[in-house]
Amino acid sequence: MNVTFLPAETVDKAIRQLRIPDPGSATIRELVALVNVIEEETGEKYIRMEMGVPGLVPSQVGTEAEIEALRRGVAADYPMVDGVKMLKNEASRFIRLFADVDVSPDGCVPSVGSMQGTYAAFMAVGNLNRKKDTTLFIDPGFPVQKQQMMVMGQKYASFDVFNFRGAALEAKLESYLSQGNINAIIYSNPNNPTWICLTEEELQIIGRLATKYDVIVLEDLAYFAMDFRKDFYTPGKPPYQATVARYTDNYILFISSSKIFSYAGQRCSIMAISNQLFKREYPDLQERFHCFTFGNAITQRILYALTSGVCHSAQYALAAMFKAASDGVYNFVQEISEYGEKAKIMKRIFLDNGFHIVYENDLDEPIADGFYFTLGYPGLTGAELVHNLLYFGISAIGLKNTGSDREGIRACVSHVGREQFGDLEERVKLFDKYFKA
Amino acid sequence: MNVTFLPAETVDKAIRQLRIPDPGSATIRELVALVNVIEEETGEKYIRMEMGVPGLVPSQVGTEAEIEALRRGVAADYPMVDGVKMLKNEASRFIRLFADVDVSPDGCVPSVGSMQGTYAAFMAVGNLNRKKDTTLFIDPGFPVQKQQMMVMGQKYASFDVFNFRGAALEAKLESYLSQGNINAIIYSNPNNPTWICLTEEELQIIGRLATKYDVIVLEDLAYFAMDFRKDFYTPGKPPYQATVARYTDNYILFISSSKIFSYAGQRCSIMAISNQLFKREYPDLQERFHCFTFGNAITQRILYALTSGVCHSAQYALAAMFKAASDGVYNFVQEISEYGEKAKIMKRIFLDNGFHIVYENDLDEPIADGFYFTLGYPGLTGAELVHNLLYFGISAIGLKNTGSDREGIRACVSHVGREQFGDLEERVKLFDKYFKA
Repeated sequence: MNVTFLPAETVDKAIRQLRIPDPGSATIRELVALVNVIEEETGEKYIRMEMGVPGLVPSQVGTEAEIEALRRGVAADYPMVDGVKMLKNEASRFIRLFADVDVSPDGCVPSVGSMQGTYAAFMAVGNLNRKKDTTLFIDPGFPVQKQQMMVMGQKYASFDVFNFRGAALEAKLESYLSQGNINAIIYSNPNNPTWICLTEEELQIIGRLATKYDVIVLEDLAYFAMDFRKDFYTPGKPPYQATVARYTDNYILFISSSKIFSYAGQRCSIMAISNQLFKREYPDLQERFHCFTFGNAITQRILYALTSGVCHSAQYALAAMFKAASDGVYNFVQEISEYGEKAKIMKRIFLDNGFHIVYENDLDEPIADGFYFTLGYPGLTGAELVHNLLYFGISAIGLKNTGSDREGIRACVSHVGREQFGDLEERVKLFDKYFKA
Repeated sequence: MNVTFLPAETVDKAIRQLRIPDPGSATIRELVALVNVIEEETGEKYIRMEMGVPGLVPSQVGTEAEIEALRRGVAADYPMVDGVKMLKNEASRFIRLFADVDVSPDGCVPSVGSMQGTYAAFMAVGNLNRKKDTTLFIDPGFPVQKQQMMVMGQKYASFDVFNFRGAALEAKLESYLSQGNINAIIYSNPNNPTWICLTEEELQIIGRLATKYDVIVLEDLAYFAMDFRKDFYTPGKPPYQATVARYTDNYILFISSSKIFSYAGQRCSIMAISNQLFKREYPDLQERFHCFTFGNAITQRILYALTSGVCHSAQYALAAMFKAASDGVYNFVQEISEYGEKAKIMKRIFLDNGFHIVYENDLDEPIADGFYFTLGYPGLTGAELVHNLLYFGISAIGLKNTGSDREGIRACVSHVGREQFGDLEERVKLFDKYFKA
């Protein structure tokens, strides 16, 4: 007789207790709460793959710089709303050395996490031009960015990129852009949740069309340099982080410290606004926000009104991390490459036991091993997979609320310890045996 | 022959150089830049009263607690969006001991400065009820809160409270509330820019009408316990900070760490949402934000979408400052009472030389000595006064863009050193001599 790893009635009871109608479509937050309850009830530790949070200690460089800034007394002084000078300069330098892109320090503006960065950007692009009222998401993507649109009451369109990789992306994008209502295109690269990385050809298409249709590309680089197929820690030398910035002047890059520096708690990221865009004047934007340039609208109007700047000491932390990385004395890529190494092993365990990777390739190349991967299992929808894995002590989120059309789940490697790999293998084997029966 | 303190041509040249059409109606930011230029040009140090920023060192209690949190590695972990437990508990306790009001820890939610607090609150109250599309400002007030309304594209109404103190406030407020379109009333107490403090009678009127017309009171307590006419540092004993919370259940209090703890740089404040309001369900709000309660809309929808929480280490700093104050070992009021002592001397210097206090009384009592005061001079408008004081090495902002109907300026004491009082007296005498002539 086939058995689950945990007593099904214990799991079901917890689901009822938390009033979760369908665990398969639960939010990350609901799943976290659910697994906490089951762990407490059963005393068994889950293989927790539901949270996309750092699993390493925070950057020592950042922590020490931040402590030093606090000792200097920066806590008393309001930070300049467009960022402290050292951070602006070091952000510009970091982007030049690791992405080979020139963004002036003026355009490197800190935000309270990339969450605030995209919020501010959505607000600005939504008011650039009265005729352009819709933002286009290249999905799958980070669900909270759509929640931001909902909170702001702005419109968006989206499509799953799965069937539109490579040259096929052009016609698909053009089918939206040619309608004339799109103000911006947003995607993450490497991608949350699928870890696909857009190719240079795809970025070129996006950049070319952004220029042609005069829309802004919002490129979320939360996982900067984390396509571990290449070693990007070569300051000032190739290979460089892939970016649309090489193919258009209409861009904002979002560089978060959360994953690359394991610095999520301090909520300090950079929006890098292209030199051309920063200075550009949009009549509708000027009227809406009583300001001159795009850069002015973002800094002196939107960011000022949102939080009046970013935590002062955290700005010095981020500046120090950028500086140390650029100086060649802080190989942040090596510190986080542990994620890729774990992904490789975990993917193998799943693949050996009946699972498959849903978003498997970047065109003809297998996707990289990184922070996330996607999984499917024959005959199960993504929701069923999430739900049934819970009986086997494994937690993950479904792909459906990320804008994916495919059936599957997102697995995050960060909070799975290497010492759990034995348990993982045992549970996955049991799962496969159960469902093959 | 009468002379100005600085060569008029130098001042005028700087005004032209910065392309300021009228210094009398310039923003704080423009004035800061202008004075920087003139100081550099002339080598003379201004009496700088234009900025409303702390002038003391940051709280040592907060700084040490923040450093300790960083050493524990909190920088890696996303903070809970509704705040770390210790901060919520200590905020609730602080409010109980210093304002004699019971707000559950659930309703004590950190925000990225009270700037984010009021932004989130404006967004929530603007969507409570389709019929209530306007927020009422009891002016004079903080100009950036109106900029927040502009950025959000929400409506507001306002009136200058000068002629509606005491019992007269009731009819004035009712003339707005009875129209049925007001969702909330906002004011600061003690007041920026005038330092008037609403009396218990006035707070009672506001509270009673808020209940009667079902509107929410947004009480900005950025200057908590800074009405230095009383000593509020008596944890758990009267006198308590005056607050509308005693007179209605429809309130949010905004408690900033910027001034009371000289902790402006770290952008961490508390929104204290009343227990009733936190749990209340508004059908229009639910539909707009896909959530259940008011508290849920603020935390899981709005604050989550804005910044996904507040700087982790700064939350521990604020918790520690609240705790030390409540424990009776951190007399924050004494630390900041220096502002009141300086105000007393500075007001005397101006009053002895032809100036008057514009907002002079709280009904029959002279206003307190505190962070700000207002000044007028016979025969000069507020704009003329700002402009002409520049020739005498004194900078301040006009009252006009604070929603005041009166002619005058706001003077902030925080960045004037006691060693400058001699200079101040000399320049004010020269000014008076010049204009009396």
